[in-house]
Amino acid sequence: MYKKNKIKVMALGGLNEIGKNMTVIEYKNEIIVIDAGMSFPEDEMLGIDIVIPDITYLIKNKEKIKGIFITHGHEDHIGALPYILKHINVPVYGARLSIGLIEVKLKEHKLSNVELNIVSPRQVIKTGCMDVEFIKNNHSIPDACSLAIHTDQGIIYHTGDFKIDLTPLDGEVMDIHRICELSKKGILLLLSDSTNADSSGYTLSEKTVGEGLYDLFRKASKNRIIVATFASNIHRLQQIINASKRFNRKVAVSGRSMINVISVAKELGYLDMPDDMLIDLNDIHKYEDKEVVLITTGSQGEPMSALARMAVSEHRKVEIKNGDLIIISAHPIPGNEKLISKVINSLCERGARVVHDEVDIHVSGHAKEEELKLLQVLARPKFFMPVHGEYRMLKKHAEIAEEVGMPSKNIFIAKTGDILELDRHSARLNGTIPTGQVLVDGLGVGDVGNIVLRDRKHLSEDGLMIVVVTISKDEGRILAGPDIISRGFVYVRESEGLMEGARLVLKDVLNDCEEKGIKEWAYIKNNIKDNLRDYLYQKTKRNPMILPIIMEV
Amino acid sequence: MYKKNKIKVMALGGLNEIGKNMTVIEYKNEIIVIDAGMSFPEDEMLGIDIVIPDITYLIKNKEKIKGIFITHGHEDHIGALPYILKHINVPVYGARLSIGLIEVKLKEHKLSNVELNIVSPRQVIKTGCMDVEFIKNNHSIPDACSLAIHTDQGIIYHTGDFKIDLTPLDGEVMDIHRICELSKKGILLLLSDSTNADSSGYTLSEKTVGEGLYDLFRKASKNRIIVATFASNIHRLQQIINASKRFNRKVAVSGRSMINVISVAKELGYLDMPDDMLIDLNDIHKYEDKEVVLITTGSQGEPMSALARMAVSEHRKVEIKNGDLIIISAHPIPGNEKLISKVINSLCERGARVVHDEVDIHVSGHAKEEELKLLQVLARPKFFMPVHGEYRMLKKHAEIAEEVGMPSKNIFIAKTGDILELDRHSARLNGTIPTGQVLVDGLGVGDVGNIVLRDRKHLSEDGLMIVVVTISKDEGRILAGPDIISRGFVYVRESEGLMEGARLVLKDVLNDCEEKGIKEWAYIKNNIKDNLRDYLYQKTKRNPMILPIIMEV
Repeated sequence: MYKKNKIKVMALGGLNEIGKNMTVIEYKNEIIVIDAGMSFPEDEMLGIDIVIPDITYLIKNKEKIKGIFITHGHEDHIGALPYILKHINVPVYGARLSIGLIEVKLKEHKLSNVELNIVSPRQVIKTGCMDVEFIKNNHSIPDACSLAIHTDQGIIYHTGDFKIDLTPLDGEVMDIHRICELSKKGILLLLSDSTNADSSGYTLSEKTVGEGLYDLFRKASKNRIIVATFASNIHRLQQIINASKRFNRKVAVSGRSMINVISVAKELGYLDMPDDMLIDLNDIHKYEDKEVVLITTGSQGEPMSALARMAVSEHRKVEIKNGDLIIISAHPIPGNEKLISKVINSLCERGARVVHDEVDIHVSGHAKEEELKLLQVLARPKFFMPVHGEYRMLKKHAEIAEEVGMPSKNIFIAKTGDILELDRHSARLNGTIPTGQVLVDGLGVGDVGNIVLRDRKHLSEDGLMIVVVTISKDEGRILAGPDIISRGFVYVRESEGLMEGARLVLKDVLNDCEEKGIKEWAYIKNNIKDNLRDYLYQKTKRNPMILPIIMEV
Repeated sequence: MYKKNKIKVMALGGLNEIGKNMTVIEYKNEIIVIDAGMSFPEDEMLGIDIVIPDITYLIKNKEKIKGIFITHGHEDHIGALPYILKHINVPVYGARLSIGLIEVKLKEHKLSNVELNIVSPRQVIKTGCMDVEFIKNNHSIPDACSLAIHTDQGIIYHTGDFKIDLTPLDGEVMDIHRICELSKKGILLLLSDSTNADSSGYTLSEKTVGEGLYDLFRKASKNRIIVATFASNIHRLQQIINASKRFNRKVAVSGRSMINVISVAKELGYLDMPDDMLIDLNDIHKYEDKEVVLITTGSQGEPMSALARMAVSEHRKVEIKNGDLIIISAHPIPGNEKLISKVINSLCERGARVVHDEVDIHVSGHAKEEELKLLQVLARPKFFMPVHGEYRMLKKHAEIAEEVGMPSKNIFIAKTGDILELDRHSARLNGTIPTGQVLVDGLGVGDVGNIVLRDRKHLSEDGLMIVVVTISKDEGRILAGPDIISRGFVYVRESEGLMEGARLVLKDVLNDCEEKGIKEWAYIKNNIKDNLRDYLYQKTKRNPMILPIIMEV
C-alpha cells in the first residue's frame, strides 16, 4: 500500500543488537539506504564467520533504490556491502576514506563494476524527492559523517556513529553549526547513536590518549614497545606514530588488516608519517629495543591475530622478551574478555609488562549521556528514534530524550523491520518488513540455517555415533555390520566395554527386526536410534547424535 | 627421592587459573590436602560440564594422606570432592557450613561412607608430623577459614579465599590476633589468595551492600522486587532478607541451588529468617507486588537458570511484568558478560527495571591490594608463594609482597605441579609432579581427551560428511553406494548441485580404484577424503569432517 506523502523509515539491522547497521528510508517512489554493516556471530552460531542483514525487501524494491550512503568506514557499517552489491548494484556514496576502505573490500571480493562516489562534508546528493547532505562528525575513524535527508516533509537527521570531540586530532570538531542551521529549518526526525547511552558523563577526547601514550613511552625509555589497537582507528595510529617520533623510534607493523589500513590511510593522506620511519618487520632486530615501536592487531585477543601469536611464541617474526612494554589501546568488546585475558597472561609469562584497560590509553568513539543530551538540545527534533544499540541502550536513550523535554509519545523504540511512518504532522509505527540475520560461512551466504546450526551444536556437545549395516535386498538378511564409528563422543580405545555393549544392543535390535520380518528402513533406523540412545545415556549421561545407515545389496 | 627434613608444597590446581583449587603438603611420610575444587570448562572444551584436578599423585601416595582440609564451601574448593573421594577415601575436615554443603553434594553422588569432621576456628587437627589449625577469616560465604599447618620446620599459612571485613555481617572479623601470634612464632611460608591482586585499594565491607539494597527497596515501594545472586553467598541472602523484613515483604525462592542452599543454611542456623516470611513460589500471586521479594539464581545469565527463564517467559511460575525491579547482586565472571547482557535486554523489553554492576549492590569476597599488603605485614613470612589466580595476578601479588619488603628471592611464582621444597632455612622450586585437567562430561570422568575435543571442535565448525560404499569381498566391485550423508554442513535440500558434484567426485575416485584393481581400504579411504575435501573447500571454503566407510560383502 503506497501512501503518497508518508515517509517510511525502517532498520534492517542495528536495533536490539550491536552491529549490522543498515537503515532504509523510503519516500514516494524512492529508497535510500544508509550503511550496510556486518556483525559478529553469537556464541551459538557455530562455525559462522560473519552475519549480514536480510535484504529481501531491498531486492524486491530494487528499482526504487537511489544509492547506499555510507556514514563511515567501520565494518559494522560497510562489512555487508560486497554481499549486498552482488544483488543490488546501486551507486555508493561516502567520504573519501570510507570509499578508500570500501575499494579495498570490493577488490578482495572481485567486484569491479560498482559506482563509488566520494562526497565532501556539506555536499548534497540529490536523488529526486530526497536530498542527502553529508555532515562532518567525530568518531574513532576519520571522515565519519552524519546524514541529513531533506524532504518536503522536513529533515531526517541520522547521526551515524558519533561523539562530540572538542579537541579532535584532525582539528575538525563535529559540524555543530550546521546542526543548528538545520534545527532552525526544522528537524522532523532524529535517528541517534545509542551505543553509549547507558554510560553517564562525556566521552573523553581522543587527545587524552596521546598524553597517556607519551607518558608510557617516556617511562619505557629502554624497552621495546608494542601497541595493539583497532586497525581502523587511524587517529589512534597517528598518536602512536607521534609518540614514536617524539622518542625517536621507528615503527614496524604486524597483522594483515593493520598493514592494509595503514597503506590506504597513508596513500590518501590520513596518516602523517615520514617515509623513513616505517621499517620492515623483518628488520626490527637491526634496531635496539629503545628504537622500535611495533603496531599490531589483536587488541581483542583474537586467537589468530598477530598479538595472540606473539603471546604463544607462534609469530614467525616477533619473539616477546623480558622487559617488552605492551600497550593494549582498546576496550574489550563484550564477549572477548576471556580471550584478551588469556593473551595478557601469556605475554606476562614471557616477561612482558602489559598495560591495558586504563582510562588514559583508550577512549570510546561513541557519545555518552551528556553528549546525547547536547545533541537533542541542538537538533530539537519533532520525533526521535534511538538507533544502534541493544534494547536497554535504546530504552535509556529514550529516557535521555525525555529528560531534555521530548514528549514520550514522540519517541519510537523500534525493532529491526518495524516501519516508522511519518509526515510533517505525525509519526507512528505501522507494520513491518521482512528482516533477519543472514549467516556467512566461507563462501556460503545464507545456506547455514537453524537446522544446520542445531546439528553443529548437537555434534559439538556429545559428538556422534554412526551405525552401518548392509542387508540383502530380497530377504533383509544382514550381510555386513553392524559397524560402529564414533567421533567426538568418547575415546574409543579406552571405552571398549561401552562399544561392545552398544554392538550387543544393535544386534538385538537387528535380530528382532529380522525375526519379525520387518524391512521398513525407517522403522529399523528408529529402533536403532531409540535403543542405542537409551543405552548410551544410561551408561554415560550423554546424547551423541546417532546416525544409522542401511545399505541394501 | 625422599628427603627427610624437607617439606614439599605442591598445587594440583589454582595456579595460572581461576578455580580448581587444590594444594598438597607433604612432610616426612604424611600428606595433607587443602581443598578439592572444580572449575568451569574453557570455551574450547565443547560439551564438558566441569573440570577437576588430576590426582594421579595422590592415588599413587594414597596411604600417606591424612585428610582433606576444606577452607570453605564454594564449588571451586569442594566441587571435585565427590570424584576424588571415589579414589581416595580419606577423612574430610571443615567448618560446620562447609561440611553441611559437602553432605548435600555427597548425597547427590550417592557417597555415604565418607568420614566428615566438623572443626571449629582455632581448633587443631593433629595428623602426626603436621598439626592443622583452622583460623576464621572473611569471605563471601560464612565459616570460611585459613589454615595454619604447624611443623617442626615452622608454620605454613594458607589463607584460603579471604578478604578483611572490619564490619562483617556475622560480627566476626578475620582472626587477625591469631595471625599476629603465629607471626611471632614464625611463619615459614605464606600461601595467599591472589584473585584480586591486580585491583588497587580495599574491598568494601559486605555491610555496604545492605545499605545499597535498603535504598533500592525504599524507592521501589510499589513494585515487585526480584534479586539474583550467588546461592552460596549466604551473607548476601541475609541482607536481602533483612531488607525484605524492613519493608514488610514476604520472600519466595526460585532455582534449585538457591532452594538447596537456603534450606541447609536455615537448618544450620546461618540464616536468620522468621518461619512465616518464606512463602511458596506458587503463592506469590496471592500477594500484592509491594509485598513480595523473589530471590533467584541466574546472576551470571546462565541460560537454564531461573532468571534467564523469566527473561524469555519460559519460567513456569513467574511472569516478568511492567514495573518489576530486578537487582543483579553479583559481578559478571569473565566470559559471562554477553549472557548477562542478553538476559538484561530481555528483562527490559518486558518492562522491568534492571539494576546491575553498581558498586553498592555487590562487593567482592577477595582481598585487594591494600588488604594483601596488610596480611603480608601481619604475617611477616620468611617465604611467599602467591596462589589462586591467573599468572598476571600471581605476578602482581609477588610485586605487592616485594613492595612491603620481602626479598624477591624468597618469593616463588609456581605452576600447578611444581614442587616447592623447603625447610626452616631455605626454599626452592625443585621438580614437578604429574598434574592436569580432568574433564567431566556426564558420567564420564577423564574419558574425553584432546582427540575427542578436537573432533567436537571440527564438527562444530563445519559439520560432517559421511560416505558409505559396499564393495564385494572378492573383486572389490561396488555393490551399493556411494551414499552421502551430511550433518551440520549445508542445508542439503538447497545444495543439491553441491551434493551431485560430490557424488561425481566419489564415482571418479572409486572407478579409478576399481580400474587399477586397488583394494586396500586405507588407500581408497584416503583418496576419497583428499578428493572430496578439495572439492568441498573449493566450492564452499569449508572443511567438514569427512568419514569414508567401506562395507565388504
